Amino acid sequence: MAARSELTTRMDGARSGLLASGFDALLVTPGADLRYLTGYDALPLERLTCLVLPSIGEPHLVVPALEVPAAQASPVAGLGVQITPWQETEDPVALVTRILGEVSTVALDEHMWAEKVLAFRDAMPHAQQVLAGQVLRRLRMRKSAAEIAELREAASAIDRVHSRMAEWLRVGRTEREVGRDIADAIISEGHARVDFVIVASGPNGASPHAEVSERVIEAGDPVVVDIGGTTGAGYCSDETRTYSLGDPPAEFSDYYAVLLQAQLAACAHARPGVTAESVDTVGRDLIEAAGYGEAFMHRTGHGIGLDTHEEPYIVAGNTTVLEPGMAFSIEPGIYLTGRHGARIEDIVAITHDGCERLNQRPRDLAVLPL
Amino acid sequence: MAARSELTTRMDGARSGLLASGFDALLVTPGADLRYLTGYDALPLERLTCLVLPSIGEPHLVVPALEVPAAQASPVAGLGVQITPWQETEDPVALVTRILGEVSTVALDEHMWAEKVLAFRDAMPHAQQVLAGQVLRRLRMRKSAAEIAELREAASAIDRVHSRMAEWLRVGRTEREVGRDIADAIISEGHARVDFVIVASGPNGASPHAEVSERVIEAGDPVVVDIGGTTGAGYCSDETRTYSLGDPPAEFSDYYAVLLQAQLAACAHARPGVTAESVDTVGRDLIEAAGYGEAFMHRTGHGIGLDTHEEPYIVAGNTTVLEPGMAFSIEPGIYLTGRHGARIEDIVAITHDGCERLNQRPRDLAVLPL
Repeated sequence: MAARSELTTRMDGARSGLLASGFDALLVTPGADLRYLTGYDALPLERLTCLVLPSIGEPHLVVPALEVPAAQASPVAGLGVQITPWQETEDPVALVTRILGEVSTVALDEHMWAEKVLAFRDAMPHAQQVLAGQVLRRLRMRKSAAEIAELREAASAIDRVHSRMAEWLRVGRTEREVGRDIADAIISEGHARVDFVIVASGPNGASPHAEVSERVIEAGDPVVVDIGGTTGAGYCSDETRTYSLGDPPAEFSDYYAVLLQAQLAACAHARPGVTAESVDTVGRDLIEAAGYGEAFMHRTGHGIGLDTHEEPYIVAGNTTVLEPGMAFSIEPGIYLTGRHGARIEDIVAITHDGCERLNQRPRDLAVLPL
Repeated sequence: MAARSELTTRMDGARSGLLASGFDALLVTPGADLRYLTGYDALPLERLTCLVLPSIGEPHLVVPALEVPAAQASPVAGLGVQITPWQETEDPVALVTRILGEVSTVALDEHMWAEKVLAFRDAMPHAQQVLAGQVLRRLRMRKSAAEIAELREAASAIDRVHSRMAEWLRVGRTEREVGRDIADAIISEGHARVDFVIVASGPNGASPHAEVSERVIEAGDPVVVDIGGTTGAGYCSDETRTYSLGDPPAEFSDYYAVLLQAQLAACAHARPGVTAESVDTVGRDLIEAAGYGEAFMHRTGHGIGLDTHEEPYIVAGNTTVLEPGMAFSIEPGIYLTGRHGARIEDIVAITHDGCERLNQRPRDLAVLPL
């Protein structure tokens, strides 16, 4: 849970961003943006909960009457935000419109549901709708020391899960069975929620976004294990290691070495002043030079924080210059369709002169005993 | 997983709805609508995955290249939907726009993220955006026999969790400890995902949407336990029972009897031909007559299916006439601020002459031994 002073700084930053952009107000429904600004962790539901933050004037949190106790128990009450309930048969969109008064541009959180977006559009036909990311991205992308500490904690928790992989990943078990054990451990090792569990064995490893299947794991299988969860404080973990059940095929060992070199090079390159896309290029060039360019068909990484995927994306075309406090994954992969694949992923945080690797597990291929 | 014939019927129904409404196309991103129409269970992410269903012409599933194997493994491939990948540095919104050609009205799934809504708006400035609910709600609200069977299975799974409550709900434990055990059991008794766990003891029970806290459960506490998850097939459970640790306060027993009578009356009333709001009124009138009207400040229920909350909502003002196949919760509550509260919730499905209660647990107050 962010300290009140940090939340106040964020709210002030959002307000400054609104003024600088010439936007009249920010409308934020439940999700990571709301939690970032107010500390209020609410689920997105059909009933409207919405932070109404005008560029000038008092902020309101419009909430269903039955959520008032939850809102009051959250940090939002200590931030000078007026909690404004609506009753079960009232129209909350009209309430937001009344609070806003005359506006010409409103910024909407990027994950707001279409039903809310169009309801606001219809209630405020003269207001131009834009994305809040233009204001919030700059803030959320540059993490405070407290946020990096939360990400470090999440990274340690998922490290502990990977450190126990030999307990579960064994020949004769299905990916789904292994995945269930991993999901239990994601919780028991320090997350509040399981976000995803990929156990992609043998040929399934050639699909970057395979999840789990009924495939029985065999001797000699490479297995890509990409897992993540969210801690009680709301920060996400995400770490991939590739395992082998006994000795892997020779060609696999060959390209794993290339992949490892690429991942290390990308991590070594990440520092303040270089662009996001250059981190992608450094690893990709090595993989291409080794003849596996076609087999690495995804971007190198994504930002991480209160969302598993957020800015900055580590992808060709993203000329964002890296700054201290930015945190993202570095996760190149090589995938041979129909055969097998490998991926190595760490979360890193940009420091004043380089980057800190938040995940600490060894990156060599982990050969598990048969 | 819905049979191919059922998915085809749904796609045909959506197309007929588009034609009848005069809409040119449906755009559906990952979520319950996409799973309903195509059987493809994809997570909402920043990379665009979108079913493009024109009222006339071939449907496409626009997917990131790295999701192609997952899409091909899903039922979508057997439905005559063309899987159309986009590469990591391409613009998928432009791709959708090219597929659509000239359109004047496009219907968007109601949970589509604002970033996608505004991107489509900007790419198709002359197309009016409307909500897909106008087309899909009629379909999703009236469940097939196969869907009711899935909901029955989900209801049985959550019944089994409630049947074990005495294992975990004991004096001296915190709500959070109890909640963790319940979450484990939600998975082990037959769900793929935990959606919510409310353990609201003593005064916390007076907040309808309390979750769990560090409060230690005491002798004599009434405890509201409202829990739900999603099965592997994607259908949701949601069931509330109120427990008491030893004998509850006398006033609690008094209003619990009123609440039970109201819940039974609402269930007895639910049948084809009556309105959704009348189910709310029947129970509410009894609670008001007993002097607890102010203490029942929320609607009576919500539809349930591939989403935990969907149409039809059982609330004043909803004049939807109930039809066979509609499934929803009946969950009146009485909440005395600062003291305690109670709620009883079952999922029911409208049959040809009444309703079937999908949850089978006793509805009497469950007094657990101290």
